[in-house]
Amino acid sequence: MPIPLQTVRLRPEPPALIILDQTQLPARTVYKELTAPSEIWGAIERLEVRGAPAIGVAAAMGLYVCALGFEETDPVAFRQKLADLSEYFISARPTAVNLSWALQRMLRLLPETGDVPALLQALYEQALTIEREDKEVCAAIGRHGSPLIKDGMGVLTHCNAGALATAGMGTALAPIYTAFADGRTAQVYCDETRPLLQGARLTAAELLQAGLSPVLLCDNMAASLMASGKIELVLTGCDRVARNGDTANKIGTLSVAVLAKHFGIPLYICAPLSTLDQNCPDGKNIPIEQRDGREITEFWYSTRMAPEGIKTYNPSFDVTPAHLIAGFITERGILRAQELSHF
Amino acid sequence: MPIPLQTVRLRPEPPALIILDQTQLPARTVYKELTAPSEIWGAIERLEVRGAPAIGVAAAMGLYVCALGFEETDPVAFRQKLADLSEYFISARPTAVNLSWALQRMLRLLPETGDVPALLQALYEQALTIEREDKEVCAAIGRHGSPLIKDGMGVLTHCNAGALATAGMGTALAPIYTAFADGRTAQVYCDETRPLLQGARLTAAELLQAGLSPVLLCDNMAASLMASGKIELVLTGCDRVARNGDTANKIGTLSVAVLAKHFGIPLYICAPLSTLDQNCPDGKNIPIEQRDGREITEFWYSTRMAPEGIKTYNPSFDVTPAHLIAGFITERGILRAQELSHF
Repeated sequence: MPIPLQTVRLRPEPPALIILDQTQLPARTVYKELTAPSEIWGAIERLEVRGAPAIGVAAAMGLYVCALGFEETDPVAFRQKLADLSEYFISARPTAVNLSWALQRMLRLLPETGDVPALLQALYEQALTIEREDKEVCAAIGRHGSPLIKDGMGVLTHCNAGALATAGMGTALAPIYTAFADGRTAQVYCDETRPLLQGARLTAAELLQAGLSPVLLCDNMAASLMASGKIELVLTGCDRVARNGDTANKIGTLSVAVLAKHFGIPLYICAPLSTLDQNCPDGKNIPIEQRDGREITEFWYSTRMAPEGIKTYNPSFDVTPAHLIAGFITERGILRAQELSHF
Repeated sequence: MPIPLQTVRLRPEPPALIILDQTQLPARTVYKELTAPSEIWGAIERLEVRGAPAIGVAAAMGLYVCALGFEETDPVAFRQKLADLSEYFISARPTAVNLSWALQRMLRLLPETGDVPALLQALYEQALTIEREDKEVCAAIGRHGSPLIKDGMGVLTHCNAGALATAGMGTALAPIYTAFADGRTAQVYCDETRPLLQGARLTAAELLQAGLSPVLLCDNMAASLMASGKIELVLTGCDRVARNGDTANKIGTLSVAVLAKHFGIPLYICAPLSTLDQNCPDGKNIPIEQRDGREITEFWYSTRMAPEGIKTYNPSFDVTPAHLIAGFITERGILRAQELSHF
């Protein structure tokens, strides 16, 4: 039922990481074949592949594809090169923890002995396992979250945490898709999500294709919509959850969370437990990526929308404190912030 | 010191309403000469002239210019035609009260007797009086509000309530300009203000030209900025204030107001008392203009930014309840909501 587009996949022969270039949606459906480290780093940095879970899957697959080209035949040197490449990939997006989680898992689960072909085989299998588990996790988030969705209920979402953000059916949209399959249709409202318009270009498109009938609004219209009584639930994904429940997600999520609290609307964060960073005590310790101001001043870097020489403030994420979050919808059920440290 | 562009003016000979077409800023500086009722109505509807005070001045001048072309020689028929034209202009933007305030004043202050030439002379003088008073009111708002501005203080504004929105130095920006002239420079942060980007295209440009060094952000970044402690004051204009202090202003103002309350930052509304609608008891009675969804889905009606067939929610204004407003900076001083009914 979700969008019939595959965000990311591993082509075994000839080996390549295949990604759907999300910066060109919805106008064009373009798949890119990536094999070089700099190509994969660039695709992540430019948000051609985006969404915390999808980035993790893409990086795991990309690590394998690049490793096929390593010249090292000594297993120790080969492992060192993998670790270096992994660090390089992580530098592309500092906030989303799934990226480092997936890469660390790729390295940690390598066999302790074995030659380079054996290591390559293990990398291949682990990348596919991460992809398969991501699909399963999305489905489980859908099952756990769908009882929150009543037929006709107004649900607001921010950015894109749907099928396009994962290898599966999405995180924030999974409860909506699951309820829809069970005959309960949410009226989904999509924040357009400036500056890169993931809500307009991705979420609205994906929900429309899935047969739901979403309504698109500018980010600054959410308060008016909530005041009108049309929103009963807010669902978003996230990029990193600190141990105390403070949550980094796409810029604007904090705004939605403060508004939801003001208007008495519950906000749930939908995420795999791999998004939980037990090493991070609270939101103050989550690094926030600052991006090029041209994302704001120029439309896709071509048409200027603001005067020359203007300064900008362009953080890619903000941090929503745990007390504004009603719960975390995970593959292990709906958790409260206080329960996160048990996982 | 504000932008050296004249938003609106009355050219006596040959008679025309001259407006700066604000939809083309900052890329192009284009003045339009308007003489026909449908041209003036369209310029207001398309936001070529915008900002509640500027719309009032433009409509008053436009009424005079159009009246010059009336064929009626009987004063009674002439007055009736003026009243009909006035209603037509008011229909272009239903929310801003300055539009109907200015037109009603044009009609109410006509001499009780006199022939058509005498009525035309009165219309001409009254239009220029409204323009002159708007300049004086802006300057007075600047004087009353400027003591709130400390040197280096972070001030957030939404949409454009500057020189481009009035015949004078603006409303929300007037305290900032006045303090700047007195040697105190605010660090102004401008919400870009989707969908039509008045903050990016107009406020950022106007402040930059005035020698301030503004920072532009997307609307959904205001919460992050407030959480970082950088904002100490919020100033906005408004389109209509109800008798109880509930205030309609550009969509997104309610969001800023809820956030400001959450983060303990005072928000002041800057407006001439002509924006106060004593006939309107509260915000529920303010009509809210809904606009074409293509403002959201297409960039200036040309480049599509969302999938075909998507539904939209596109109110032009929202209503901020009085309890979220610290005060109203008017030409008569800073007023609390409870004091508004005395004016």
